[in-house]
Amino acid sequence: MYIQSVEVLDKRFKMGEGAGSDATHTNPQYSYAVCVLKTNTSIEGIGLAFTLGAGNDLVCKAIHYLSVKLKGVEIEALMADFGTAYRQLADEPSLRWLGPHKGVVHLALAAIVNACYDLWAKSRRVPLWKLLLDLSPEELVNTLDLSYLEDELTRAQAIDLLKGELAGRSRRSEVLTTGYRGYDTSVGWFNFSDELIVEKTKQALDKGFTAFKLKVGSDDPLRDLRRAALIRQTAGDAATIMLDANQKWNVPRALDICQRLGSINPYWIEEPTHPDDVFGHRAIARAIAPFKVATGEHIPNKVIFKNFLQAKAMDFCQVDAVRVGGVSEFLTISLLSKKLGIPVVPHVGDMGQIHQHLVLFNHIGMGHENLFLEYIPHLRPYFVHPATIVDGFYQVPQEIGSSSDLKI
Amino acid sequence: MYIQSVEVLDKRFKMGEGAGSDATHTNPQYSYAVCVLKTNTSIEGIGLAFTLGAGNDLVCKAIHYLSVKLKGVEIEALMADFGTAYRQLADEPSLRWLGPHKGVVHLALAAIVNACYDLWAKSRRVPLWKLLLDLSPEELVNTLDLSYLEDELTRAQAIDLLKGELAGRSRRSEVLTTGYRGYDTSVGWFNFSDELIVEKTKQALDKGFTAFKLKVGSDDPLRDLRRAALIRQTAGDAATIMLDANQKWNVPRALDICQRLGSINPYWIEEPTHPDDVFGHRAIARAIAPFKVATGEHIPNKVIFKNFLQAKAMDFCQVDAVRVGGVSEFLTISLLSKKLGIPVVPHVGDMGQIHQHLVLFNHIGMGHENLFLEYIPHLRPYFVHPATIVDGFYQVPQEIGSSSDLKI
Repeated sequence: MYIQSVEVLDKRFKMGEGAGSDATHTNPQYSYAVCVLKTNTSIEGIGLAFTLGAGNDLVCKAIHYLSVKLKGVEIEALMADFGTAYRQLADEPSLRWLGPHKGVVHLALAAIVNACYDLWAKSRRVPLWKLLLDLSPEELVNTLDLSYLEDELTRAQAIDLLKGELAGRSRRSEVLTTGYRGYDTSVGWFNFSDELIVEKTKQALDKGFTAFKLKVGSDDPLRDLRRAALIRQTAGDAATIMLDANQKWNVPRALDICQRLGSINPYWIEEPTHPDDVFGHRAIARAIAPFKVATGEHIPNKVIFKNFLQAKAMDFCQVDAVRVGGVSEFLTISLLSKKLGIPVVPHVGDMGQIHQHLVLFNHIGMGHENLFLEYIPHLRPYFVHPATIVDGFYQVPQEIGSSSDLKI
Repeated sequence: MYIQSVEVLDKRFKMGEGAGSDATHTNPQYSYAVCVLKTNTSIEGIGLAFTLGAGNDLVCKAIHYLSVKLKGVEIEALMADFGTAYRQLADEPSLRWLGPHKGVVHLALAAIVNACYDLWAKSRRVPLWKLLLDLSPEELVNTLDLSYLEDELTRAQAIDLLKGELAGRSRRSEVLTTGYRGYDTSVGWFNFSDELIVEKTKQALDKGFTAFKLKVGSDDPLRDLRRAALIRQTAGDAATIMLDANQKWNVPRALDICQRLGSINPYWIEEPTHPDDVFGHRAIARAIAPFKVATGEHIPNKVIFKNFLQAKAMDFCQVDAVRVGGVSEFLTISLLSKKLGIPVVPHVGDMGQIHQHLVLFNHIGMGHENLFLEYIPHLRPYFVHPATIVDGFYQVPQEIGSSSDLKI
């Protein structure tokens, strides 16, 4: 099976009132820059990169520029040494200047890389999670580009890590019978009224969710405190509540407000300040312990993740495969996190479609803790096989590929 | 004077054989995404962002998207509180997702911001360096966005820093009679033959240059060593020689090769590894002292510069105003560098046109050391007022604006 042509789609979706809003991104339109790999068969590889609407066309144009070399390539041959192909795409000598490894061009890479893995899984007629579990440690590492990580994770160390986890696989495969726990982000969008937050939290409790996220970062911290107390009161003391500031605070302000938000016993504070600020996050993490710091949706590549992990500036790694360089860089960052002892709890720009596969592999294949995965329902109607939650748990996807197919 | 419309130009230039090549960017085509602010007068503000050709159109498109709010704005009113306007542009809620503050969208911001300063200087009929020197400390800081720097540099501290340098201004203004020393990057491009490097170094010596840069990062380190020794031999023991690896090495390799390159007594090693790697650069800087580490052309914003400065991961700060968010963010990063004790030696994606103004202000107004400024002649024919070097010194520009006007 070989790639005959590349099609690019600019897909933007309607959102409900206030849905997806946070302190920084006040009026998002969830959108995908979509890479479609057409083959000499009826099978197509679909890859997504997530944006908030504006500029989605820039990512689409960059997919065109970056993907030209994929034409005529045979999929098994490509994936047998995908780490090398990845590096060539990521380091195209002139486009690289527009990053490197960040921004519009890197988002385009995400869509292309995700389409390659989707096509590979479909060509083998298995779901993505099973494709990854079926690979040997060497075969899996062959799909990764570990360049610039050699001071923390060599190829030999990556293979050894995966081999060391083979023994526990059958025990951890229990997750395939239980499903993977979800948490509900959609109870507490920034623009929701107090009444709506209470109503949505009650609905989520009825659906079996036990963990919830609230958007904070209001100009008036008292609003954050009031809304956090409302969720705590509605969900009860046993519930897990995460707070997400979406980069709104500077470091001194984050230190102040996070201390006060400790009163509702949050599980983590997410993106308390600028996503590039390694030392800012470290200062906050040290100050607010035992509450944790989560970040990653705006960390663009493995090198900056390496710095955050080295500095112990994050307690949870929220890498997102539709934001970094696709499944390949997601797995690279997951390996690095595992080696440095930090759990991975992905951000889901894909609404959990691809990540429901990746957390299964991370747990079974890599030995990452079985925690929970963000769930956002707003784009369910647009996916051919939307992720499905039953009693608060993601059901294990059985369709071939990465669950990225969109209805036309 | 108010902004009536915004025009965007995609300018790509012909390069000589091998010119501009380095170990990573093997075949560059120097290009500018140009923002033209048209006014109700014959004066236009011209702002540049620098790319290597591919994707320059993406930056141009992003200029269109970001600049819509500037239409109808009066230039003095805009610049009186430009820090606020800058933050609004940089934090456009949905385009921000494509960064934030990095990549294609941030390059577009550079072009827009530079056009604003150019227009402001032209409207006051002074060169940019004089415009900046004529501003009071409060007026200058009003043009900056210090958000996310509060843990290291508050508004009050920035103003105090500038006030503290007022007393030494007249002494430092001597640079206006001597000019600012240049160094020659164009003797040692990566694809140049050994013979051409020797010839170009001799020519540069004849023109009065005393400092030179060589591109390293060859697959065979012996090639780097041979060429470095050639330049040292040609230029003599008193010459200042900088080596530039353009991100080619991983950390262990950089540590190895930099030790060996120490034999030619280099002044600095530039971009020894991935530009995002704060701890990698710190490890290299500690290992190779007393040789220095320079970096910055690929550091996209003030927050990552803050981290490098906090970590003492750079000895020279090579911020580039056509790469970060324009003159405004350049000045912000220069202030931060001054406060944290690191000299600024800009990278010149603008071929020195704008930076010849900025280093004069950095020295006279901010008290930065009078060091030297990179000089690259390849685009001289395309500028209306090309920067001019006499006896190795940049001549102080006298024309109004930021010297960014391009011939059609």
